[in-house]
Amino acid sequence: MANKFEQFLAERKNVIEQQLSVYTERLNMPDSLKKSMLYSLEAGGKRLRPVVVLAILHAYGKSEKDGIPVGCAVEMIHTYSLIHDDLPCMDDDDLRRGKPTNHKVFGEATAVLAGDGLLTESFKLITSHVSEDVSADKRLRLVNELISAAGTEGMVGGQIADMEAESKSVSLEELESIHERKTAKLLAFSVMAGAILADAPENEIETLRAFSSHIGIGFQIRDDILDLEGNEEKIGKRVGSDTTNDKSTYPSLLSLDGAKNKLADHMKAAKDLISGLSLQKELLYDLCDLIAARDH
Amino acid sequence: MANKFEQFLAERKNVIEQQLSVYTERLNMPDSLKKSMLYSLEAGGKRLRPVVVLAILHAYGKSEKDGIPVGCAVEMIHTYSLIHDDLPCMDDDDLRRGKPTNHKVFGEATAVLAGDGLLTESFKLITSHVSEDVSADKRLRLVNELISAAGTEGMVGGQIADMEAESKSVSLEELESIHERKTAKLLAFSVMAGAILADAPENEIETLRAFSSHIGIGFQIRDDILDLEGNEEKIGKRVGSDTTNDKSTYPSLLSLDGAKNKLADHMKAAKDLISGLSLQKELLYDLCDLIAARDH
Repeated sequence: MANKFEQFLAERKNVIEQQLSVYTERLNMPDSLKKSMLYSLEAGGKRLRPVVVLAILHAYGKSEKDGIPVGCAVEMIHTYSLIHDDLPCMDDDDLRRGKPTNHKVFGEATAVLAGDGLLTESFKLITSHVSEDVSADKRLRLVNELISAAGTEGMVGGQIADMEAESKSVSLEELESIHERKTAKLLAFSVMAGAILADAPENEIETLRAFSSHIGIGFQIRDDILDLEGNEEKIGKRVGSDTTNDKSTYPSLLSLDGAKNKLADHMKAAKDLISGLSLQKELLYDLCDLIAARDH
Repeated sequence: MANKFEQFLAERKNVIEQQLSVYTERLNMPDSLKKSMLYSLEAGGKRLRPVVVLAILHAYGKSEKDGIPVGCAVEMIHTYSLIHDDLPCMDDDDLRRGKPTNHKVFGEATAVLAGDGLLTESFKLITSHVSEDVSADKRLRLVNELISAAGTEGMVGGQIADMEAESKSVSLEELESIHERKTAKLLAFSVMAGAILADAPENEIETLRAFSSHIGIGFQIRDDILDLEGNEEKIGKRVGSDTTNDKSTYPSLLSLDGAKNKLADHMKAAKDLISGLSLQKELLYDLCDLIAARDH
């Protein structure tokens, strides 16, 4: 049977990609900056984070309309982080999704500023581009959640912790703390944002936060496994780079089979958590299965 | 007679500097990132932007309390922009305010992330750290104004335009458009934010926006003049670098005397604009005089 989330993703991807371009095109800025921002926004990618916002709204039986700007906001944050991570002073990557990285095409200075621009404008999608149906209080809450996920207590802090972990051996607990901040929190934002927009009960919002943490960590474990077992063409980057860089990963700490078991445990925990919630669960169960089995 | 704004600045600077450290210390992030952010936040500077927020509140006879987090937000944005501007791929500066630049002390990767962290967290000061007296609508308006000032239509766009102008000759109109975005809009945010927090009448807020534009451009003209006439020790960087870099400046387009006249014109226009407003004007007149005569 087809994966329902995969179908949902395929149906919603286009509207997200169109709107990412529309929001950016409308801004009045120098052409070179706009081209650089659009290059990375339009470079493809799974669009998992924005579509998760829509999926939660859908699962609660609500209109997905306001999930579009909020989903685009989280995709802009994700895109800025990739541009900055690829810089020579960070991961020094020449390729991203099979294409030259932003700084390879536009130069480092423009890449830094394109990232800064995407980060800054992302918040405007929440403050100004959702409909009047979303109260000012709810917008502020969404902005606060996005700052927590993307800022020093989230992604930016996780990125520093990840860099520092490269030069030492880390425990499983430390590895989990790094990925919680670097990867899981931003995916969790998508889930939380969907639930907040759907006016989900507060206890369900908090349960969904715990659910997100499991799927976010699961997402990262799958990433580590793909680095060992994946197909280079499908994932669009070199396989085995973690091993070459002597980086601590779930497979290096737990063995490949141990990492696969850990991934299954997180996905089971995620599914168990939401079994009692009032939303349509099949879509989210299939999201768990998709994350656990994805090949890119 | 002493300059009233200079006195006001001297009295308010400490509380801003203390709070910048307090807000940052409270965040839960890796030590190296926190040290890097604090290094640049505590490296001195005039603190003009945050104190202008307080000055407008004071001039309207209102409590300055909520101006503190909002002022700290704009100072964090200013600080992030300096860290990123100093990077080797941008201006490649080793010194800032007489001290080694952030990347010289902490490395480029940490400097990029410290800038990203400051930019992201700055918005939280507005969304979460002002008092309950400031309505959610007003907070959203402040966030939107800050995005316009700092983002692609403001500072980030102005920085790209400035880089592109280095390799060609620009007209006075183009130069003004660059500095409007690169410098004036962020200073204008401080003025507007003070007026919004003070519940100033809408027509006065718009008049103050025009006032800010004149003082922001005036600020930049004074910067260009200081690059020719300034004292290296006082301004904390090399003098004459614009000429060495063959950069278009107000003095290079208008002659030194022409630039001085232009500066005086902008300050007169700024003062004339606010003469009919309901706020206490002496403090703002003295702000104009301070900007026009500053030696660093």
